Amino acid sequence: MMPTGPIAVLDSGLGGLTVVDALRKVLVGEDIIYFGDTAHLPYGNKSAATVTGFVRQIIQFLRPMHPKHIVIACNTATALALPAISQEHPTLSMSGVIEPGARAAVAAAGPKPIPVIGVIATEATVRSRAYGQAILRRRSMAQVLLRATPLLVPMIEEGRSSEDPVVELALRQYLQGMIQRKIDVLVLGCTHYPLIKRAIARVVGPKVKLIDSAEQCAQDVARRLRRKGLLRSAESGMPGGGGRFSSFVTDDPARFAMLASRFLRLRIDPPVLVEPRELYSAPPPLPLRATA
Amino acid sequence: MMPTGPIAVLDSGLGGLTVVDALRKVLVGEDIIYFGDTAHLPYGNKSAATVTGFVRQIIQFLRPMHPKHIVIACNTATALALPAISQEHPTLSMSGVIEPGARAAVAAAGPKPIPVIGVIATEATVRSRAYGQAILRRRSMAQVLLRATPLLVPMIEEGRSSEDPVVELALRQYLQGMIQRKIDVLVLGCTHYPLIKRAIARVVGPKVKLIDSAEQCAQDVARRLRRKGLLRSAESGMPGGGGRFSSFVTDDPARFAMLASRFLRLRIDPPVLVEPRELYSAPPPLPLRATA
Repeated sequence: MMPTGPIAVLDSGLGGLTVVDALRKVLVGEDIIYFGDTAHLPYGNKSAATVTGFVRQIIQFLRPMHPKHIVIACNTATALALPAISQEHPTLSMSGVIEPGARAAVAAAGPKPIPVIGVIATEATVRSRAYGQAILRRRSMAQVLLRATPLLVPMIEEGRSSEDPVVELALRQYLQGMIQRKIDVLVLGCTHYPLIKRAIARVVGPKVKLIDSAEQCAQDVARRLRRKGLLRSAESGMPGGGGRFSSFVTDDPARFAMLASRFLRLRIDPPVLVEPRELYSAPPPLPLRATA
Repeated sequence: MMPTGPIAVLDSGLGGLTVVDALRKVLVGEDIIYFGDTAHLPYGNKSAATVTGFVRQIIQFLRPMHPKHIVIACNTATALALPAISQEHPTLSMSGVIEPGARAAVAAAGPKPIPVIGVIATEATVRSRAYGQAILRRRSMAQVLLRATPLLVPMIEEGRSSEDPVVELALRQYLQGMIQRKIDVLVLGCTHYPLIKRAIARVVGPKVKLIDSAEQCAQDVARRLRRKGLLRSAESGMPGGGGRFSSFVTDDPARFAMLASRFLRLRIDPPVLVEPRELYSAPPPLPLRATA
């Protein structure tokens, strides 16, 4: 793989831009391609088969652009689709948001004999048990509490902030059990959630460490590229790229650019529209390779 | 068209079942086919082009079953797609939920010189202005207030009821302006909303008449079929059908059946799964007929 290829970041919609934001801070000079599957969002209440189907089509679309690394910047897609998709594309470098979040949660849990780690996420991410497995693999003596919080994404996309009373009330309901069980760490297991981090911190109190899966994911990507000698930023000694950013969405580019600027204060050019029908006319995926 | 064909009802997901429920009460003995596009839901925050694309594929899928009438049981799909789709299929009998809702709202508005009619709906339905146009065409002296209420569908699908404090608080925020402007009528412009009708009634108070677009739509379908001599129920003198019900979804049939029983107390057999890829491999739509 050429170190000059772009990093491709994919998400069901807007949330993955929090990962792009974090990536641009740690990897100056890298080119980034973003794919937001806005025609099919949200992924969080859909089945593994359907979400894997969506991700499969997006990867087929991205491959001809020769990305040196693909980031699945969506917790649901990571939980439901990453294992199958990496098997289908054994030569592609690919990573998600769950392993880095789990690693950071375990690191933050401290020296307690049995720390209590909470995870809030979409319904599909919770159902997949991916976070529990990733945490317990690293630290078998831990208590993991999972809670689906399906209203948070639509609240954030509606433009509600940490100061909105509906956000506050919903968070108090969702987090009550975790507060009673005295969690030590809370993983924000959806790339949207950092946008209401202040409200979450207020509700759980100052003793609980919050793990931002977007930030952890970006640092993980930097580590992977560094290890493989694929960095192109100043630190690598390679000629720096332009740090170009381009994006694709499956629905409503203007709305996407508007939401990106409103919620993330990212000014981006309107993305290129890839209609769902076009996505499905991409060549069929490679046959599944037998696992070793 | 044969009076023995089924009535086809389509929706982005679950909400259209409120129309099925109403249809079965007014049209005993009719066969009903339901199509819930659960892989692509929600429609309410997507563009007209994308929603029209989804509906177009569903109609292509339903045509070979020779429905005698197609009901677009989703306000967003009616607002964004019905005009274009009926032009593409001039021989198909087709109706939506907005015209019946608007007609009922005007009828309920009473003798006031300038009644105030409120409509709550998805973001896309509000943006389309379809309700305003349908109401003002029937009664030009009326004030129409539209409000997008994007949290209500995810709240209802999460299982929250009229007694939930988050539902109550969100409704108070959404409806505050309408209450101050003293609306006479409030249209529930999304087929999910009747499920929290008690909370809506409590918030707007007893003087405001609520219009249930699902119920109005079912009565409208009965009127249309009666007018065309296509009724097959007892009242028509035709041999009664079995009142059979079958359904198709694009994602997770088991979850759909579970939600149908939980929210609508409808016990249905799990629907047949039609994968999105399968839907897109249906024959391409007929060419658009030039408008007269």
